[in-house]
Amino acid sequence: MTNIHERNIDGKTKLVGLLATPIGHSLSPRMHNLGYTLTGINYAYLAFEVGNDELEAAVNGMKAMGAAGFNVSMPNKMKVLDYLDELDDSARHTRASNTVVNKDGKLVGYNTDGLGYVRNLIEHGVELAGQKVTLVGSGGAATPIAIQLAQSGIREISIFARNDQYFVQAEENVNYINNEMKSFGVKANIFPLEDKDAFRREVAESAILANGTSLGMKPLDELSIIDDTLDVLRKDLIVTDVVYNPQKTKLLAQAQEAGAKTINGLGMMLWQGALAYKLFTGEDMPVEQVKQILFENDRF
Amino acid sequence: MTNIHERNIDGKTKLVGLLATPIGHSLSPRMHNLGYTLTGINYAYLAFEVGNDELEAAVNGMKAMGAAGFNVSMPNKMKVLDYLDELDDSARHTRASNTVVNKDGKLVGYNTDGLGYVRNLIEHGVELAGQKVTLVGSGGAATPIAIQLAQSGIREISIFARNDQYFVQAEENVNYINNEMKSFGVKANIFPLEDKDAFRREVAESAILANGTSLGMKPLDELSIIDDTLDVLRKDLIVTDVVYNPQKTKLLAQAQEAGAKTINGLGMMLWQGALAYKLFTGEDMPVEQVKQILFENDRF
Repeated sequence: MTNIHERNIDGKTKLVGLLATPIGHSLSPRMHNLGYTLTGINYAYLAFEVGNDELEAAVNGMKAMGAAGFNVSMPNKMKVLDYLDELDDSARHTRASNTVVNKDGKLVGYNTDGLGYVRNLIEHGVELAGQKVTLVGSGGAATPIAIQLAQSGIREISIFARNDQYFVQAEENVNYINNEMKSFGVKANIFPLEDKDAFRREVAESAILANGTSLGMKPLDELSIIDDTLDVLRKDLIVTDVVYNPQKTKLLAQAQEAGAKTINGLGMMLWQGALAYKLFTGEDMPVEQVKQILFENDRF
Repeated sequence: MTNIHERNIDGKTKLVGLLATPIGHSLSPRMHNLGYTLTGINYAYLAFEVGNDELEAAVNGMKAMGAAGFNVSMPNKMKVLDYLDELDDSARHTRASNTVVNKDGKLVGYNTDGLGYVRNLIEHGVELAGQKVTLVGSGGAATPIAIQLAQSGIREISIFARNDQYFVQAEENVNYINNEMKSFGVKANIFPLEDKDAFRREVAESAILANGTSLGMKPLDELSIIDDTLDVLRKDLIVTDVVYNPQKTKLLAQAQEAGAKTINGLGMMLWQGALAYKLFTGEDMPVEQVKQILFENDRF
């Protein structure tokens, strides 16, 4: 034997991957490949720089090549629905898919973003039943969070969005929850983010304040959905952020200072990946081990 | 640090692969991935079970995903020409491509099979200038060998093919060499494989006898293009085989017994891969190292 450590890719290795742009800094390839290495699953996860223009050919190509599945991220999460054969409820409700599974040649779209968020809350011991949540945002991350929260046992969700195109999207989400998801018995409300009085009141009534926007992500890491004059943070509030770069956003630093419980975006990122991993492979991702290795060097 | 050895795939890893069926036993994934590991090139080579029906979508998908390139094998080597943007002479002359390179979004088809065969002869110290060659076969391996030999300095090539659809293909190859490749000054002849007298005469006049058919490959490893009554082998004949599984085919065993010099199919396989590797990466494959590692366990 030689000392060469071969990449363990062979003629049976199955392709999975990510279709998105820009893609350089995605953690998904390392996260998924780590999981495969740890569990001995013969898959390889690659990142493909694909925008809306290349999406149809890339999706059809993944199918033709017999890929096990693929993740989809910005700017393709909504557009990809046009090219799939079936939609799971998680993708249908959110009108977006981040995870596509090749089931015997049929592409089935799922959305694990919202489930990843809620699963992470549960892992942190957060009680959702009967609670009220204030959510800021209505974009690609906030929408699946809103839709999934509405299915999680909460009683009310108040959504704040900037008074621009995001407000229209927020209205759609609120109407969808109030009209199409009646069976879950959740009341959804909408407010412009500029309405400080409403924000103060809704957060005061909420158990959870969730940031679903990219505010606070590098290079905007000096920003927060809460300005310092807005005295809404308190000890028994749970403050969550979808941002994980930096791990402690300005919002979470403010919340910690006020004694609130904070949950950063890492867990949601890990759990949306773990749920996709399960859909791709049928096996559980070793989440704790992956997390430990992925962040042992404190890259953020 | 942990002891986990991660697959070294990250967000920058480039895809290359093989589109063919059946694909299970191809050596190409291991060969190429070994080369990448040895030289530190961040590529991953996967095998995709793709037939004529899936080929167009797979080719367009590889392009849309920004793959560096891909190999094509049976049954797609001719069909793939329909989906490429440009053809190198090596693919144009053979009307087949085994290697497609993504040049800034344009797919360019090459054929490295014939070049791999000739390069391997040269590596073995075979002198081609002015020689006559007898070649058996006119299929996917024999055609590029015939076309490349015609460009290698030989003076004459006699092609034998079974009197069925292969004979038509052999006629095309002979006509192509005599009419379209006049500038190379090579005379091409055609004979039915059933014509034993012609075979005896042509081999007697040839420096090289080449098997370009799959006769002798497992599970047909008891077969040879030469039956034992056909006394054509001699000490100063060079006998080559495209088959590498087994490494010593019945034909090569017969040739060795007659004292002839033998060259098996391994070198052609390695060199067609090395030439594709160079086209994909711009770098030389470390052929000797790859060969040593690939066959250290005597898998054949």
